[in-house]
Amino acid sequence: MNEVLKQLKERKSVRIFEEKDIPATVKDEVIGAAFEAPTAGNMMFYTIIDVTDPKIKDRLSILCDNQPFIAKAPLMLVFLADCERWYRTYIAADASPRKPSAGDLFLACADALIAAQNTVVAAHSLGLGSCYIGDILENCEQIRELIKLPTYTVPIALVVYGYPTEQQLSRKKPPRFDRSHILHENCYREMKSQELLDMYKKQGSNEIIKDLCNRKYMSDFALEMNRSVAEYLKNF
Amino acid sequence: MNEVLKQLKERKSVRIFEEKDIPATVKDEVIGAAFEAPTAGNMMFYTIIDVTDPKIKDRLSILCDNQPFIAKAPLMLVFLADCERWYRTYIAADASPRKPSAGDLFLACADALIAAQNTVVAAHSLGLGSCYIGDILENCEQIRELIKLPTYTVPIALVVYGYPTEQQLSRKKPPRFDRSHILHENCYREMKSQELLDMYKKQGSNEIIKDLCNRKYMSDFALEMNRSVAEYLKNF
Repeated sequence: MNEVLKQLKERKSVRIFEEKDIPATVKDEVIGAAFEAPTAGNMMFYTIIDVTDPKIKDRLSILCDNQPFIAKAPLMLVFLADCERWYRTYIAADASPRKPSAGDLFLACADALIAAQNTVVAAHSLGLGSCYIGDILENCEQIRELIKLPTYTVPIALVVYGYPTEQQLSRKKPPRFDRSHILHENCYREMKSQELLDMYKKQGSNEIIKDLCNRKYMSDFALEMNRSVAEYLKNF
Repeated sequence: MNEVLKQLKERKSVRIFEEKDIPATVKDEVIGAAFEAPTAGNMMFYTIIDVTDPKIKDRLSILCDNQPFIAKAPLMLVFLADCERWYRTYIAADASPRKPSAGDLFLACADALIAAQNTVVAAHSLGLGSCYIGDILENCEQIRELIKLPTYTVPIALVVYGYPTEQQLSRKKPPRFDRSHILHENCYREMKSQELLDMYKKQGSNEIIKDLCNRKYMSDFALEMNRSVAEYLKNF
């Protein structure tokens, strides 16, 4: 197995970081990896916000479902799907663009997430752990105000990075589902109830699935995320 | 620079492939890399469709803005944001889930794209080139029928892989914009017209930006993508 594959396999999300700063050169390499990622038509439909102000970090950790570990990360990047920059650039060049729409947004989300994952891969190669925080999609109004998001942008991912503690390094990577459930050939394969339940059998019983539904899928934060995303979509 | 960073820098999109099959073990490693990617709550909100049927490949290459090179790729994976599988799993476990909504879809898109980018990184390490095809978001109705997409899924990315030709290997990676335009600190920094135009000055003049607006942003395929994504969103 080559070094890249080995590292992709090793990598697991890290939520507890050493109190240790990230040297500027290392931070540069992590961010630089985003710029090397594929991007639709070489147009970079994203903006990365490097959150360095401890007050903004604290506030974001609260707005992202109250997770204090977020604020403790020495590096925090918000990846914005950005349809604003090009819209304004077209206007600046005297073109007559239409307003950005949902398809433009999805393409921008793809660009932003592809770039984000490159930083996660780069970070691991430099000894840094990382964690995606999906909750950045919640609380649209406050997030918009806090980091001054213009109309045609959506914060599609927040990633925090830092040196993992010993405990985090020794933590086992959680097992994924069997390929048979996730990888289909030629078209989508609908699964019967028993096969769907079997997908989760490594992790637990029907009761655990029910609990997952109630505790996560039906939770206040999931409902808030849905409300907030619907709000973002109103502009597109 | 370590091996991983070196490879992330080297990688560029490849659109012309050698007529050479990908060995099964290599294909396994590429797909396996998807499963090693971060995934929200370890829930894998995506499905990967491995398109092996030449007829479906041909049809997809037509539906994706008529790009014949797509059908010639020895490996073609569709990454679906999949809110259907868990919705059905909850029902199978006798829970009472709400219907999936736009926030769930965005989280699933993130999962699918993060997994896709891991396959792109893995592919490069194995000597394979790859290219994202954003046009998979177009022609909702025909794509749905062709690969039998259920209600709560969206094909957020198509990636094709193959061995690059010599010409593709020697092609220069296009330059990205300067960091100052893409990387902001603490909050979004709105740029004045001149700075926006300067972003593109490496690539060309105002006239080229206008042309880009007319030829791409205002094109039929961009309008079709927006129509099609709006159609997908109706289910969420």
